[in-house]
Amino acid sequence: MRTLNPILLNKKDFISYGDVLSTQNSDSIVINDGYAQKHFNLATLDATQNGGKSALHIYVAKERKFPLKINMLEKHPYFSQAFIPRSTKPFLVLVCLGEESPDLNTLQAFITNGEQGVHYKKGVWHFPLISIENNEQFMVLDRTDCGIKENKIVECIEHYFDADIKINLLKEVKCNELS
Amino acid sequence: MRTLNPILLNKKDFISYGDVLSTQNSDSIVINDGYAQKHFNLATLDATQNGGKSALHIYVAKERKFPLKINMLEKHPYFSQAFIPRSTKPFLVLVCLGEESPDLNTLQAFITNGEQGVHYKKGVWHFPLISIENNEQFMVLDRTDCGIKENKIVECIEHYFDADIKINLLKEVKCNELS
Repeated sequence: MRTLNPILLNKKDFISYGDVLSTQNSDSIVINDGYAQKHFNLATLDATQNGGKSALHIYVAKERKFPLKINMLEKHPYFSQAFIPRSTKPFLVLVCLGEESPDLNTLQAFITNGEQGVHYKKGVWHFPLISIENNEQFMVLDRTDCGIKENKIVECIEHYFDADIKINLLKEVKCNELS
Repeated sequence: MRTLNPILLNKKDFISYGDVLSTQNSDSIVINDGYAQKHFNLATLDATQNGGKSALHIYVAKERKFPLKINMLEKHPYFSQAFIPRSTKPFLVLVCLGEESPDLNTLQAFITNGEQGVHYKKGVWHFPLISIENNEQFMVLDRTDCGIKENKIVECIEHYFDADIKINLLKEVKCNELS
């Protein structure tokens, strides 16, 4: 059995997969006559191939149980995808390199610091949303025509496997690291 | 002097200006093997005219002082714009109809219920972000090339006026209504 221990999400280690969405370590300017600090261009959404449009959804997530068994990964060949939590609760991110199929040797789990969101590049292998808390709201950005039959694109490629892989959530360690 | 009292934000009264972004009264499906409820297509972002791309920013807002004097409105001719608070705190929205200039007879102030965000249609007159709390984070969706000189578009048209208009924040009423 292989057990993955998440590391704290950071720009450097996530760069192959996409963007960390955060006011920390980002460029910003003062706007609105001093009433807002704009942390700009944290992500450029990539959804326009084959006539697509960027769309906003809200996911209400259920908590996952740990250790979490990993038996699949998915990717979206026609759009990038962003997840931003509304709360200040951490969540988990599991990503993997590979083209036609995921290279499981490159599996990497991250835990956010509560403020961070993520933006997966188009085509990056990842596990679906992993919330630690129940009824967490996430803002999700991808593409409008997912699931609309009249203008169908391949919205999701799923890859299942038999490897015995689990993600640990060391809650005590995590809370200490994040505090 | 003219005083505006915000009404609670709702789809019906906001339809001329754009979308209310909320899990309430929205279509949803179960995804992720039961681990997420997806409230889908709450907004279709409109930023691609003249080669634009949708972008995500985070604004950290300062609290406004009330009554708030209104002496300008702005609009963005090349993109729609969404604001979603990360907290569960209400914020104010001030919108107006009109083409070349705002028709001040149609000024309408809204207060959100804490869960809601807003998406202004392209070209809708509005007042900049009105946060009631200090250091509130808002996810903002519009367009990447704002302010980039090499690919400059008219990102913002501002209209100033002399009318003596103020927005009241009846905090006690608001809290009762929202609770």
